[in-house]
Amino acid sequence: MKAAFYEGNKTIGVGACEPIAPGESEVRIDVAYCGVCGTDLHIFQGHMDQRVKTPLVIGHEMSGKIAEIGSAVSDWSVGDNVVVRPLCPCNQCAACRRGHGHVCQNLNFIGIDSPGAFQSSWTVPAHTLHRLPEGISMDLAALIEPLAVACHDVRLGEVASGEHAVVIGGGPIGVLVAMVCRHAGSHVLISEVNPFRLQFACNLGFETVHPREQNLIKEVENCTEGEGADVVFEVSGTQAGAAVMTDLVRTRGRIVVVAIFAEPPKIDLFRFFWRELKLCGVRVYEAEDYNKAIDLVANNELPLEQLISARKNLNDLQDVFEQIEGGGEMMKTLIDTQRE
Amino acid sequence: MKAAFYEGNKTIGVGACEPIAPGESEVRIDVAYCGVCGTDLHIFQGHMDQRVKTPLVIGHEMSGKIAEIGSAVSDWSVGDNVVVRPLCPCNQCAACRRGHGHVCQNLNFIGIDSPGAFQSSWTVPAHTLHRLPEGISMDLAALIEPLAVACHDVRLGEVASGEHAVVIGGGPIGVLVAMVCRHAGSHVLISEVNPFRLQFACNLGFETVHPREQNLIKEVENCTEGEGADVVFEVSGTQAGAAVMTDLVRTRGRIVVVAIFAEPPKIDLFRFFWRELKLCGVRVYEAEDYNKAIDLVANNELPLEQLISARKNLNDLQDVFEQIEGGGEMMKTLIDTQRE
Repeated sequence: MKAAFYEGNKTIGVGACEPIAPGESEVRIDVAYCGVCGTDLHIFQGHMDQRVKTPLVIGHEMSGKIAEIGSAVSDWSVGDNVVVRPLCPCNQCAACRRGHGHVCQNLNFIGIDSPGAFQSSWTVPAHTLHRLPEGISMDLAALIEPLAVACHDVRLGEVASGEHAVVIGGGPIGVLVAMVCRHAGSHVLISEVNPFRLQFACNLGFETVHPREQNLIKEVENCTEGEGADVVFEVSGTQAGAAVMTDLVRTRGRIVVVAIFAEPPKIDLFRFFWRELKLCGVRVYEAEDYNKAIDLVANNELPLEQLISARKNLNDLQDVFEQIEGGGEMMKTLIDTQRE
Repeated sequence: MKAAFYEGNKTIGVGACEPIAPGESEVRIDVAYCGVCGTDLHIFQGHMDQRVKTPLVIGHEMSGKIAEIGSAVSDWSVGDNVVVRPLCPCNQCAACRRGHGHVCQNLNFIGIDSPGAFQSSWTVPAHTLHRLPEGISMDLAALIEPLAVACHDVRLGEVASGEHAVVIGGGPIGVLVAMVCRHAGSHVLISEVNPFRLQFACNLGFETVHPREQNLIKEVENCTEGEGADVVFEVSGTQAGAAVMTDLVRTRGRIVVVAIFAEPPKIDLFRFFWRELKLCGVRVYEAEDYNKAIDLVANNELPLEQLISARKNLNDLQDVFEQIEGGGEMMKTLIDTQRE
């Protein structure tokens, strides 16, 4: 088998390695595809070196087939097609005790805190598995993890049919959030500054605004009869996004913070008071979000195929990170871990 | 009759004026007491000169007795003891159409946008009235307006019995929020830097922390078994309060923004993501909050008497503002509008 390791210093090494026999409650998976996530890029760039112990196989947006099962695993069989929800909560902390294991205070995020899926064979706890229905394609199945993020965000944002949603930031997660909002019956406008991403969102049929060339606030007012959006998703992680989000929402509207802000931005709390706005932070997903994402993929409800910019192999991973870092015109790159 | 006018330039004038006969849907009230609010101080200091048309009778925390009723007023009689919920929504804007008239986009806040209650005789629309039960004292009744603010804040903060609440800022509104939280069965800790207010909160039996002398985060951890508070009320309006509030809340906990922030503070949005925190802005009150506040006063549920620092008359109002501005050791000053 082959694996790609983050070695620190913006370096991905690729090498042979031995499959790990599953422990009694584990399974070993032949990974089919693993997508490259913004978090992986963040790791590649060294921003998470304090957390990531090198060398580490990263990657967590995967699909695959069970190759071997541990002795205590009864619900799964060799040959089952699966995706992994890569969260191992401690089951003891305050968050876990309240049933919020996905934001466990001692969370082991597989692929960040322990070895991930950029390898042809991957051993994980059986409790992380979700079954794939018959006939689902393994490349689209690799989008289930980021799609589950979007399902979680839209669920916690309480998006309802007929509502107006604004998504600030049209990268892969922003576009997935927009797709899930539209599927829920809401009108969606995407704000994005990157011309490639703007055109991409436009091609998917979304209303789009370039906030440096158009007046985003006026555009949102125009399509909401002056009222403001029901819900705004902040997916850009920028001060500009954080500054404008409060101007886009109607009275008692909701803001969902999806992006990871490295620095605390300035936020117009007066506007929160004045319009009784609500804001919630959202992080990863829960089991029901995975189930929802699997349904959406299995039933072909979303134009996900268009999101896949390229299929590469493990040896290409260094190049892929460098291309993304250089602003390459791509959305989601999948790594075929079996291909030489 | 007598009235106190804000004349601009930190000046309150007091003069005789004629009672205004009520229009057909109005009533004329003999005002008993009118409390001095932080917003009144804000007006006195000139911060709202763009909004306030001088000379203007300000004041909106009142109690009184109906002296005269308009021809179309059927539910009220001369002699009824009342308080006024000083909000006249336009009933047409987007907020009103959604049933949120209290945050109407064209709100006439009586006492800011039109003449208020620092006068012995006051004419207002009958729809603003709430009836006072028999036997309620008129000085405590003048606290119903700020108490309704607190009831609104605690209601929207969804405070439940057994929860841990932190109130950042121990002025009159902060203390009232703390009282209503405690009445709802929650444990309350007040953070305050002013020694007089700190002692005042302590005397009321609240846990208190001076955040520059003690480690507020550790104190909250200590009394929540390391978990963090269920709900935090930001009532200080300071960058320090806005910075610390996100560190005090448990996973999926709530932050309620009560204070009016003149400048956008820096907010730790990473923490919102990391712990899936929620935040909501809250403003004034709705009818049910007034009803709740009236019940609390009528049934003597809260130690409100202690909140009244002084009873003055209209001629004292200039001095009262100057004392508050100078950091005088007071909580709530009531103006007896009938006393010479």
